[in-house]
Amino acid sequence: MDERIRRHAEILVDWSAQIESGDDIVLSIDEGAHDLAVAVAEVLGYRGANLVSVYRSDEIQRAYLRAHDGEFDADPTFEKSLYENADRVLLLKGSRNTAAMADVPDERQQAHARARQGIREARLATDWVSTLHPTRALAQQAGMAFEEYREFVYDATLRDWESLAEEMGRLKTILDDGSEVHIDAPGTDLSLSIENRTAVNSAASVAYDSHNLPSGEVFTAPADADGEITFDVPMTVRGERLRDVRLTVENGEVVDFEAASGEETLAALLDTDDGARRFGELGVGMNWGIDRFTDNILFDEKMAETVHLALGRAYDACLPEGESGNDSAIHVDLITEMSEDATLSVDGEVIQRDGVFRWESGF
Amino acid sequence: MDERIRRHAEILVDWSAQIESGDDIVLSIDEGAHDLAVAVAEVLGYRGANLVSVYRSDEIQRAYLRAHDGEFDADPTFEKSLYENADRVLLLKGSRNTAAMADVPDERQQAHARARQGIREARLATDWVSTLHPTRALAQQAGMAFEEYREFVYDATLRDWESLAEEMGRLKTILDDGSEVHIDAPGTDLSLSIENRTAVNSAASVAYDSHNLPSGEVFTAPADADGEITFDVPMTVRGERLRDVRLTVENGEVVDFEAASGEETLAALLDTDDGARRFGELGVGMNWGIDRFTDNILFDEKMAETVHLALGRAYDACLPEGESGNDSAIHVDLITEMSEDATLSVDGEVIQRDGVFRWESGF
Repeated sequence: MDERIRRHAEILVDWSAQIESGDDIVLSIDEGAHDLAVAVAEVLGYRGANLVSVYRSDEIQRAYLRAHDGEFDADPTFEKSLYENADRVLLLKGSRNTAAMADVPDERQQAHARARQGIREARLATDWVSTLHPTRALAQQAGMAFEEYREFVYDATLRDWESLAEEMGRLKTILDDGSEVHIDAPGTDLSLSIENRTAVNSAASVAYDSHNLPSGEVFTAPADADGEITFDVPMTVRGERLRDVRLTVENGEVVDFEAASGEETLAALLDTDDGARRFGELGVGMNWGIDRFTDNILFDEKMAETVHLALGRAYDACLPEGESGNDSAIHVDLITEMSEDATLSVDGEVIQRDGVFRWESGF
Repeated sequence: MDERIRRHAEILVDWSAQIESGDDIVLSIDEGAHDLAVAVAEVLGYRGANLVSVYRSDEIQRAYLRAHDGEFDADPTFEKSLYENADRVLLLKGSRNTAAMADVPDERQQAHARARQGIREARLATDWVSTLHPTRALAQQAGMAFEEYREFVYDATLRDWESLAEEMGRLKTILDDGSEVHIDAPGTDLSLSIENRTAVNSAASVAYDSHNLPSGEVFTAPADADGEITFDVPMTVRGERLRDVRLTVENGEVVDFEAASGEETLAALLDTDDGARRFGELGVGMNWGIDRFTDNILFDEKMAETVHLALGRAYDACLPEGESGNDSAIHVDLITEMSEDATLSVDGEVIQRDGVFRWESGF
């Protein structure tokens, strides 16, 4: 077995999911994630956990959904009870064809998802972790050779997470104590209020309320925003390429926008609902293993020397007890580079300059 | 999709498992059975059944069992509840390597199986059906080219089961009404009492209490036996090749035995317990799609123009209400050809001569 796969499995089981003897684990295995599943099963065996393997095949799903009349039974008990009685769900992503569901009508997929709301909630109620096994299909989507992509994924994933968690803790403390964030960069001059908000140290472990491996970001929920921001990292949203999105924000609301491409899609996003014109998340990427954009939000938003803002829904973890944050049907991340002519400041103090944090260089 | 795979899926769902709208189905998918699973999912979609896909991977199982210390938790609830709440379990066999578990100690496998007794019972309490998707590994085990093996499997599986069930029903009636079966063939002169026993019309459908696709045999549980029988079809039992097994039976018990090869294994089998020296099953193969032996009991014992007897455990379905039949830890089928110089008689009347039934030729 590739030593990297073995190491990936160990990090997933021990650091991310914190699995112990007797835990009941559902392994949800994508078509292309077999090799990682074998490695994870080995680690689960060593830890004395119990294991059920679920096969999450896009081809099976496609065949089933296309044939079905669309009147789905709500939350079948046999499936729901599996998740309700599980301690952890490990989602091993690894597509063999990212277009495998291309000819399944959206409404059919949505009807199926709606009928399974209770099952999804039962799954999310466990300490679930999602991770990604590199496949040729994913390499192709990233525009990379297979081995090149494997190196990319493992550089992002096989980190010293404990030490990164400690470092990210510094930024969390600064954000938790601060009231206002200011982002200054080419095309960007934006102030965000973070008064009374709590930052999440997203260290790829359920111990940090972080459910993705890799992770490597600190994020919070801005309460207010004013100014302008340019997102210079291209993103594919709803199949459309968004480039150089530029937003003007007043009293927290986007009042003007433009984009070098994808402007119509952007307009549609902003028109989704009231919350879609407000920011639900401010995130700071701190994963130094991610050295390029692959148009996969799981990696892109974690890249070191970037900042991202999400239009739409805020995460509860960032809000004071009982307070509800920005609400919306969407949560779309947009990313800007901070590596040149850029500063991130909190309450007037520069925290990061040109991608380097204060504690790294001591400026 | 290969039309044969589609047809296989339809027979499995409609004839074998009799699945209807709203049924909760667990699909248990071997590593090599993906293509059949896709076809089955499509048919389940058309029928409006609910579907959970479980991945039954030997490689995952091997990794898990080898790493585990062997102290397995008994019947974990999350897995048991999946089967307890299911209506049907469809087992899609399709190994990618029939030796995949070769380096897992037997005792580890047995300890795991013992700890999961309740889960197995919950699965068997559903109307389960087991079938086989042809793989290269299975072709290799059968000593056949892949496409040759695929043709073999589909010839055996894609039958007109309704018409075969009707034909097998004739033999069932004769056996149910009869008191004594006599088998006469080269090296064989054996009488079996079947008084008060009920034959099973194993027509590959839960409607006939038949859980394997393909099937195609009529079987009962002999109450007594006397005479001699030679099993001229070679079989691999516990990794040993048994050839030309010859048994002498008095008052239902094997009193003498010999074999051209595998005699030690045969001796060990007979010594398992008291019931291992008695016949638990008499079966008559009636699947005319099976034209050769592949050393896989799922197919071999169903081959037309053969008869098999099992040493050991009898099936309850063949016994009068409340009566317990032959009991043993083993159930080992041994097969003899009936195509030449052979007759099968019931109460003195010849039912089958040289492989041809009375109703076929009218003798």
